Amino acid sequence: MKDIETLKSAIRDVPDFPRKGIIFKDITPVLKDGKLFSLAIENMLEPFRDQKIDSVVAIEARGFIFGGAMANILNCGIIPIRKSGKLPSKTHSIDYELEYGTDTLEVHTDAINKGDKILLVDDLLATGGTARGVCKLIEKSGGEIVGISFLIELAFLNGREKLKNYPVHSVLQF
Amino acid sequence: MKDIETLKSAIRDVPDFPRKGIIFKDITPVLKDGKLFSLAIENMLEPFRDQKIDSVVAIEARGFIFGGAMANILNCGIIPIRKSGKLPSKTHSIDYELEYGTDTLEVHTDAINKGDKILLVDDLLATGGTARGVCKLIEKSGGEIVGISFLIELAFLNGREKLKNYPVHSVLQF
Repeated sequence: MKDIETLKSAIRDVPDFPRKGIIFKDITPVLKDGKLFSLAIENMLEPFRDQKIDSVVAIEARGFIFGGAMANILNCGIIPIRKSGKLPSKTHSIDYELEYGTDTLEVHTDAINKGDKILLVDDLLATGGTARGVCKLIEKSGGEIVGISFLIELAFLNGREKLKNYPVHSVLQF
Repeated sequence: MKDIETLKSAIRDVPDFPRKGIIFKDITPVLKDGKLFSLAIENMLEPFRDQKIDSVVAIEARGFIFGGAMANILNCGIIPIRKSGKLPSKTHSIDYELEYGTDTLEVHTDAINKGDKILLVDDLLATGGTARGVCKLIEKSGGEIVGISFLIELAFLNGREKLKNYPVHSVLQF
């Protein structure tokens, strides 16, 4: 519990980023401290340690940092979800809602096998729009979502509601 | 040695990506296989295991996947190098040459302390322009580069020449 408070107090608020009125939760002070980074990873993994996981799916770009470490600890592979045009081979894609307009995310069509048990990883749960889009992409590929793990949850945005069909875990709530 | 051949044969050539005439080295078949991913990480770390490393510096976005796992194994922190406008706090930035035009990379000014021993990590060494730019950024921040580790080196592009002041390690050469 003391560890979690230490982790939480290391998250830096940056006002007016990426635009006026937004307070951005900056995780780089956690990343750069080996002890805090390890603590973040261990706590993100905690509820899923005893479950069968075939692959970690991680969302570009900050999700890759956590996903790489978590997949390595779980001795499983990592499947990157990327912005449109970044993956070189054939992809499934999905448009998802942003605050203004939409964006597209992609996964290779051969990345996930039917029935694969998937742990989805990202740094932050805000409105849940991105994660929900990625869940659809995983299911379109035939994967089964074991759970979704975030370092940070902005609880006041109620993103969990969009993900209510899945086990959602977050380490730090704001 | 047999392991390295297995790893090498898993890299997929994608012709005409991102544009006509380029054969893209697709690492996603390595990433999605837990054994191959672990083998890649262990071999990228190998020459630096017994050296003092304060931080892994990783380049957006594929470098984050390897960097996260490597930092976690080394029990050190990870410092992200990002495209312009992605890092929320005060940054050092550097323009570097691409085949056509230039691009900008940034690091937080408070990410690296004077004298920090840095292991730089990315997935691929091509012309070396990006890595050389990042080395300048690390040195501008006061860091000392212990080494640079890549999964893949496109040896025919002679990127090592641009990085001749640093210990450069690559696991797979093409």
